Amino acid sequence: MTPRSDGANRQVIYEHRPQGALSADDFRLVEVPIEAPGAGELLCRTILLSIDPANRAWMQARTYRDQLTEGDVMAGFTLCEVVDGGDTDVPAGSIVACEAGWQEYAVMPVNRVRPLQPVAPLTHHMSVLGITGLTAYFGLLAVGRPQAGETVLVSAAAGATGNVVGQLARIKGCRVVGITGSDAKNRMLVDELGFDGAANHRDPEFTRQLREVCGGAIDLYFDNVGGRVLERALGLLQVHGRIVCCGVVSQYDTATPAAGPRGVPGLLVTKRLRMEGLLVGDYAGEWPAATAELAHWLESGELVALEEVHDGLDAAPAALVGLLHGDNVGKRMVRVGPDPG
Amino acid sequence: MTPRSDGANRQVIYEHRPQGALSADDFRLVEVPIEAPGAGELLCRTILLSIDPANRAWMQARTYRDQLTEGDVMAGFTLCEVVDGGDTDVPAGSIVACEAGWQEYAVMPVNRVRPLQPVAPLTHHMSVLGITGLTAYFGLLAVGRPQAGETVLVSAAAGATGNVVGQLARIKGCRVVGITGSDAKNRMLVDELGFDGAANHRDPEFTRQLREVCGGAIDLYFDNVGGRVLERALGLLQVHGRIVCCGVVSQYDTATPAAGPRGVPGLLVTKRLRMEGLLVGDYAGEWPAATAELAHWLESGELVALEEVHDGLDAAPAALVGLLHGDNVGKRMVRVGPDPG
Repeated sequence: MTPRSDGANRQVIYEHRPQGALSADDFRLVEVPIEAPGAGELLCRTILLSIDPANRAWMQARTYRDQLTEGDVMAGFTLCEVVDGGDTDVPAGSIVACEAGWQEYAVMPVNRVRPLQPVAPLTHHMSVLGITGLTAYFGLLAVGRPQAGETVLVSAAAGATGNVVGQLARIKGCRVVGITGSDAKNRMLVDELGFDGAANHRDPEFTRQLREVCGGAIDLYFDNVGGRVLERALGLLQVHGRIVCCGVVSQYDTATPAAGPRGVPGLLVTKRLRMEGLLVGDYAGEWPAATAELAHWLESGELVALEEVHDGLDAAPAALVGLLHGDNVGKRMVRVGPDPG
Repeated sequence: MTPRSDGANRQVIYEHRPQGALSADDFRLVEVPIEAPGAGELLCRTILLSIDPANRAWMQARTYRDQLTEGDVMAGFTLCEVVDGGDTDVPAGSIVACEAGWQEYAVMPVNRVRPLQPVAPLTHHMSVLGITGLTAYFGLLAVGRPQAGETVLVSAAAGATGNVVGQLARIKGCRVVGITGSDAKNRMLVDELGFDGAANHRDPEFTRQLREVCGGAIDLYFDNVGGRVLERALGLLQVHGRIVCCGVVSQYDTATPAAGPRGVPGLLVTKRLRMEGLLVGDYAGEWPAATAELAHWLESGELVALEEVHDGLDAAPAALVGLLHGDNVGKRMVRVGPDPG
């Protein structure tokens, strides 16, 4: 596919640092000319744009990457088609994973793109076979190390990472309990993904509900949310229980994230808990093997890809705002352009 | 030694649950008759009584043991002489470690005492060779796993556990930085125990001071205090740093310990930190080997026993209150009775 005939590149600019919750008004759509690749660069056309809670965390502060700067193109993970390989050895027509951001076209340094041999629909390479699926895989299996028969609790369980965590724990022979903010999501987890139970953190009876559905102490808590839900989960953990710290979505969409940790170490001592953070990039060398295993489970039907595709770059701001409110079911992404072919 | 000729046993009763900070008035001294051991029991005479921050935590809530009940004899670890072995096979004159509590005599079930072959002055079996020394040993070596050349930070560094942690880290070839609440303690750590530096958490310039004395990111933080000091330490931890959660003394002496953890998991993710709780009892099978190694270091002079002995059972309440204010230097204990002899 060649660039748009009008030579224009539409971009979403991160315009205002949100003072409280993020709003679609914090972004602005602009049109600029498509640039040509320089030495060691290639021109990419965005096919799918990943919408992630981490996008909001990047606005708050320096995390594992620099804080976002107002006025820049909004950052985001993408799957792209190379439309001009420039002087690099990546041929036009290749599919690459990269952080092209919220725009239709991006000039990328060749060392910042990861060529992909698709083994499934591209959306699966954004969900189960992408960053969130791999995060679930390494967070659960390498950090959490579940044993068959254990009870695994996962929050944001209908989210992109959480739903895969729950399915993988089930595949590994664990009892799996999910936490979401909606009864409909919870029914879906049990009926369609094989979770053993689920609790709704927006229910006034959440604490009692969670205790009942867990049916006793839990062995492993995969934390995507932090905050109050983490505090409840800590109370239910078994002696020598483990917490995989994967994300803190309850604290992203605010100008004043809660400090920590004050009281928590007391519980860690009393129960000899292990609480460990995780970034999927640390396992980059093992991604190909993990992807192959995930693809195998997808093919066998043991693993279901839970995906949500929104249409058009303009949809990205509202898609992110809604994600932070928990509106998504599974991996949320935006289709910016058509698949190649 | 035979029991007191008047047959009286003096006890300190835990009388009021403190509403805020603990006061000596929350205890009451009483005199009761010495009891005789029943089947499977022995009569112990208290020689040394351990004064520990955990004593205060036991008043707050159920921890790794039941919450203390008002009206009971105050609980505490002791080194005792068996004065009447009853029908057990522990001979009179034996030295045992047990939880006899704050009293001169206690009848103990035989399965709740641990006979001891002293290899050093008894006070050393309460400090470096006792629970706090073993906690330092396993917390640092088994959970923290320091490597030579790493920077180890320890809080409550002049305390019973902290000072041993620092010395062991130094023996293992680490750079060691301590945190205490006094400049005098800090000088002692550097001049007498071989710490590389120390910062004072009561200094208005604490954060800057800590950063300077650490001289860059730290690899391992041994946490005895929780709260604000832990938050500062988290900020200084290296990627893949470790936190050994040993105690939370900043949160014990209050009716309203801070909840947690809210914000902390974000940092754990960003830096892929591991935060792990510890109780020394989990390593009971390895205590003899650890004690032998600690005794060897004591003998060679590589390890210094930092101890504070207060005189008489009456001194126990004020000794605990002062400990919670950070008045102690090294292992604080109360001499309730003379060594056997």
